Amino acid sequence: MPRYKLTIEYDGTGLIGWQRQRCGVSVQAALEEAFAKFCGETVRVHGAGRTDAGVHALAQCAHVDLAREHAGDTIRGALNYHLRPAKICVLAAAPAAADFDARRSAIGRVYRYRILNRRPPPMLDRRRVWHVAPPLDLAAMQAGARHLLGRHDFSTFRDSLCQAKSPVKTLDVLDVTRAGDEIHIEAQARSFLHHQVRNMAGTLKLVGLGQWSPDDVATALAAADRRAGGPTAPAEGLYLVEVRYPVGQVTGLS
Amino acid sequence: MPRYKLTIEYDGTGLIGWQRQRCGVSVQAALEEAFAKFCGETVRVHGAGRTDAGVHALAQCAHVDLAREHAGDTIRGALNYHLRPAKICVLAAAPAAADFDARRSAIGRVYRYRILNRRPPPMLDRRRVWHVAPPLDLAAMQAGARHLLGRHDFSTFRDSLCQAKSPVKTLDVLDVTRAGDEIHIEAQARSFLHHQVRNMAGTLKLVGLGQWSPDDVATALAAADRRAGGPTAPAEGLYLVEVRYPVGQVTGLS
Repeated sequence: MPRYKLTIEYDGTGLIGWQRQRCGVSVQAALEEAFAKFCGETVRVHGAGRTDAGVHALAQCAHVDLAREHAGDTIRGALNYHLRPAKICVLAAAPAAADFDARRSAIGRVYRYRILNRRPPPMLDRRRVWHVAPPLDLAAMQAGARHLLGRHDFSTFRDSLCQAKSPVKTLDVLDVTRAGDEIHIEAQARSFLHHQVRNMAGTLKLVGLGQWSPDDVATALAAADRRAGGPTAPAEGLYLVEVRYPVGQVTGLS
Repeated sequence: MPRYKLTIEYDGTGLIGWQRQRCGVSVQAALEEAFAKFCGETVRVHGAGRTDAGVHALAQCAHVDLAREHAGDTIRGALNYHLRPAKICVLAAAPAAADFDARRSAIGRVYRYRILNRRPPPMLDRRRVWHVAPPLDLAAMQAGARHLLGRHDFSTFRDSLCQAKSPVKTLDVLDVTRAGDEIHIEAQARSFLHHQVRNMAGTLKLVGLGQWSPDDVATALAAADRRAGGPTAPAEGLYLVEVRYPVGQVTGLS
C-alpha cells in the first residue's frame, strides 16, 4: 500500500485537538472523513503528535496508507475540498517511504508560544495569542528559560494525564524573544511531555511578572513535582510550527 | 478644550470602515459612542484618513476635543471597556497640542497589503490576507512597482468616488517582499487617493501572474485613466500600519 506524508495547517479554535474522540471535531477524524469522501477508503491517519484542544498548527505532520496511488497534488486538492468548512487544510501531500512514521521518525518538534504583552486586548489576533496586560521582564524570562535547557526530569511541567513512559526529556532550544508588542517562546526538542510547553510558558510568565525569580525556575524543575510549577498557559497562544525528520527519511531516498 | 491624540487598532471584518454612515458599525461612530458613555459628552472624532469597509488598522490615528481633562490611560481604559464587543481598541490616548490635527498634521501614511501566495486557502489568517493560489513572480512585481515610485498623476489607480482635489501624489515607497508564503506590498506616501493601494496591489498581482509585463504598469500609469489599471484587490488584505507626524508636532513640544 502506498504511504503518504501529509503536512497540515489548522486553526485550533473550536477543535478538540488532534485526536479522534467521542464528541467534537478533531483534526484526525476530519482528515479520515475527508479521505473516505475522496477515495471511499476507511483509513487511519497517524499524526506526529497530539495537539490539545485549541492549539494551532502551522505544519503538523502525519502519515497515511492508501489502497491506490494518487498524485500528491490530487490528494491535497481533494482533501481541502472535503475538509471545508473545518478550519483545517493540507499544505502538502507527498509519497513517503514504507517505513516512514510521522511520530516515530520525527527527530525534532518546534513549538512557538505567543504572548501579547500590552494593556489593550488583541483585535486582529484574537484567539491567536495569550493576552498578558502587565509588562513582562524579557531578560528575566530569558534567564529563567536557561535553567530548563538540556536533559532533565520535567515532571514539574508534565500534565497528570501524560502517557509518556519517562518524564526525562532533552530541551534543545527555549528562546524568549520580543517581536513588537509580543513575546515569543520558541521550544525545540525531540519530543515533549503533555502540556510541557504551556506549563513552561505559564511559569516563565510568573518570572516575567516578577512574582518568581529566574532561579525559582531551577528550584521548581529540581522538585520534579507538577505542584511546584506555574500554571498552564492557555492553548490559544500555542503553535506547532514544525516537525523535523532526517534528510532522506521521508522519501527513503537517503 | 483639551485635545487628545488616539492610536487605534481594528479588525476591519464586518466594519463599514472609518467613517460614520447611516447603517452599520463604523470606527468613528463606535469611538464617539464610547466617549458618550465614558464622559457624557457628544464629541467628534477626527481620523487621519478614512479606511474602507473591511480594511484593517494596526495604528490608525485620530484627534478629539474633550470638555474636561483626563489622564491618557483613563481615556484608553474607559474607551476599551465601552467599545466591546466591537473589534476596535484604543492602543494609546495622549494629550496633544491645540493645533494638532490627525489628518492635516500627518506627513506620511504607511499601508501594507498581504497576499497569501500558495495553493491551499488560509486557515489561521482567514480575512487577514488576499489568497492568490497561482505562483506570483516576485521580481516581476518588484520591477512593476518601481514604475509607480515618485510623483505622478495616479488617476489610473483612483476610485471614481475619490474626493481628493488632485490625482497627483508622491509615492515614496512601494516595496514588494516575500515573507514565507506571503507577498507583502508596503506603500508609503504623504497621502493616497481612494483605493490607490488596493488598485496598485490588484495591478501588481497581474504582473506577478505574468498577465502583464512590468512595463505595462508604466503604460497604465501614463494613461491616467482608471480603465487602464488592474482590478481593485480585496479589502481584507489591507492594513493601515502607521500615520507619521513631525517630531514635536503632536505634543507641541518642538
